Amino acid sequence: SHRYRIAVIPGDGIGGEVVPEGLRCLRAAAETYGFELETVEFGFACADYWVRHGEMLPPDWREVLGGFDAIFFGAVGWPEVVPDHVSLWGSLLKFRREFDQYVNLRPVRLLRGVRSPLRDREPGDIDFLVVRENTEGEYSNIGGRIFEGTDRETVVQETVMTRTGVDRVLRYAFELAGSRPRKHLTWATKSNGISITMPYWDERAAAMAERYPDVVADKDHIDILAAKFVLRPEQYDVVVASNLFGDILSDLGPACAGTIGIAPSANINPDRTWPSLFEPVHGSAPDIAGRGIANPVGQIWSGAMMLDHLGEPAAAARIVAAIESVLDEQPEVVTPDLGGSGTTARLGTAIAAEI
Amino acid sequence: SHRYRIAVIPGDGIGGEVVPEGLRCLRAAAETYGFELETVEFGFACADYWVRHGEMLPPDWREVLGGFDAIFFGAVGWPEVVPDHVSLWGSLLKFRREFDQYVNLRPVRLLRGVRSPLRDREPGDIDFLVVRENTEGEYSNIGGRIFEGTDRETVVQETVMTRTGVDRVLRYAFELAGSRPRKHLTWATKSNGISITMPYWDERAAAMAERYPDVVADKDHIDILAAKFVLRPEQYDVVVASNLFGDILSDLGPACAGTIGIAPSANINPDRTWPSLFEPVHGSAPDIAGRGIANPVGQIWSGAMMLDHLGEPAAAARIVAAIESVLDEQPEVVTPDLGGSGTTARLGTAIAAEI
Ligand SMILES: CC(C)[C@H](C(=O)O)[C@@H](O)C(=O)O
Ligand SMILES: CC(C)[C@H](C(=O)O)[C@@H](O)C(=O)O
Repeated sequence: SHRYRIAVIPGDGIGGEVVPEGLRCLRAAAETYGFELETVEFGFACADYWVRHGEMLPPDWREVLGGFDAIFFGAVGWPEVVPDHVSLWGSLLKFRREFDQYVNLRPVRLLRGVRSPLRDREPGDIDFLVVRENTEGEYSNIGGRIFEGTDRETVVQETVMTRTGVDRVLRYAFELAGSRPRKHLTWATKSNGISITMPYWDERAAAMAERYPDVVADKDHIDILAAKFVLRPEQYDVVVASNLFGDILSDLGPACAGTIGIAPSANINPDRTWPSLFEPVHGSAPDIAGRGIANPVGQIWSGAMMLDHLGEPAAAARIVAAIESVLDEQPEVVTPDLGGSGTTARLGTAIAAEI
Repeated sequence: SHRYRIAVIPGDGIGGEVVPEGLRCLRAAAETYGFELETVEFGFACADYWVRHGEMLPPDWREVLGGFDAIFFGAVGWPEVVPDHVSLWGSLLKFRREFDQYVNLRPVRLLRGVRSPLRDREPGDIDFLVVRENTEGEYSNIGGRIFEGTDRETVVQETVMTRTGVDRVLRYAFELAGSRPRKHLTWATKSNGISITMPYWDERAAAMAERYPDVVADKDHIDILAAKFVLRPEQYDVVVASNLFGDILSDLGPACAGTIGIAPSANINPDRTWPSLFEPVHGSAPDIAGRGIANPVGQIWSGAMMLDHLGEPAAAARIVAAIESVLDEQPEVVTPDLGGSGTTARLGTAIAAEI
């Protein structure tokens, strides 16, 4: 039977609470579908580690993690101890960039049992994928400050887009759209205001669209696109966006589909030169950490995306189906964010049992 | 009696359809409240002008417009003829920057008679202001392309923030928050990902917050803030954001409050060294232009903001009240976007009559 080696990084805050539930469900799926999971847990990429070492990761992190089949990640960020841009650039954003996880894939789906904040939306009405560029764009670290501390103080930061970087994520998104029944792709832009990088993004997207004549491609400016997620979410199928726009859309989309507490994400290296990383869209949630009430569904669903990536699509689909039936049929076990009185462990256990 | 000199620029597409309705309502208000409006209409800042002159504006536009008390603007953009970034940077964005209209103020309010796409939201539940920085930040035109046409092609664009630029818009927002009953300010950021400019924005906002101890100030990252506009819009009062984030939030907010078709905006030069500019949030809408069905409410409401700025707050409030009562009590005259069968002129006339 297949055996997969998984690096587990719980990180900060509720990461440590939801990851065990993710693992519980992964193990249940492994048992049902006859594959093996070897997991190794790592205590870096968190504020505790930073306090002890002054770094978020050990110097040999590439070698330590590079040989795993995938990384199962909780959340990182504990701003009371270490500023977010330090902890994030020192861990998660480093993985994304240095492991070349250039696709951040985030499904937006209104599940049975979940109430959308939008009027009159039923399960099935909202079902699309956000494909986010994950290594460049607005998330650069080039720039700086001049005339510090004076009235002339000026701060600059570069957005950087490369043909390689833009084309590969667009290609992924067009392939994905082509594989879906609706074959519809929307690219997010802001070429009317951001006058250099965004017209370039449009130019590459238009060129890519010519190569995929079977995909119906259109573009929306990010402002109107955000508005349309609220007004007409049913019209989207695959949405591809730059790093920053993808970040915004992949929180906004899940909010329209009920809650970001259950949204999963996959940081994928499609070339498989390095491991891909799977994490919930939500963060470490300092406000509810330590209380055992965090919603584990985002983590569990991320586990499903990991299995899909590893070549276990049936097990992946089973996990998602289990999530959906528990949310729909066992309202008493859901966590408070979804209106229930369940705990993290109780909800995780219920989903694992269903698998 | 007071006499105000207004430069009128209809621009492209539905701009030319909604501006006359805005003027109709402004004239009604002038009559009722006993002030005079002198309007001069200009045919530049549109695709037609560009076709004839190869520029969006005449060379002496500063002198031509600089002496007016305000600019009443429709919409600009006709991408079939001139690329958006050319038409926008050649007109609207130039006004904002060169007339130092550093505050873009956009009210988000769920009016009576308008249905929010959000469940269970009633008029009064959503009532906040987006204060958008309007001259710098992500909307720079510094940057360029290297290795053009090759696989190494790379495009960069700078975000630029200055202490002057950041502090003045923050100060405006804190003053505004301090003048409102809830005294609550939220600043939008993304300092966990955008690691140079956004931590700077946070730093200046935190420093400004110390000077306004009566204002309850907090921050949200743009991704979660967008999600919370959908999930908990009632919690916002004044939201201050950089140019790009403000752009996104001021389309998303109005969408949550029903439609961007009715949202107004004020591009304000608070120092009054140059005229301020008032325009609807919506654009030129090529898809419905020429059909006489565009919703004029954004334009009319922008007129109200203009009167407020000119020192006619009672007339301004009356226009907003007239909008609200027509939308609420005369569903037959509203335009198709709001579910009615009215025309632009019919809705504008009904509101003017109510004033
Ligand atoms: C047309 C575009 C350049 C403009 C902007 O992004 O500022 C518009 O969306 C707005 O909000 O006024
Ligand atoms: C924590 C933050 C840096 C991160 C991002 O912006 O990428 C998060 O919001 C996400 O979406 O994974």
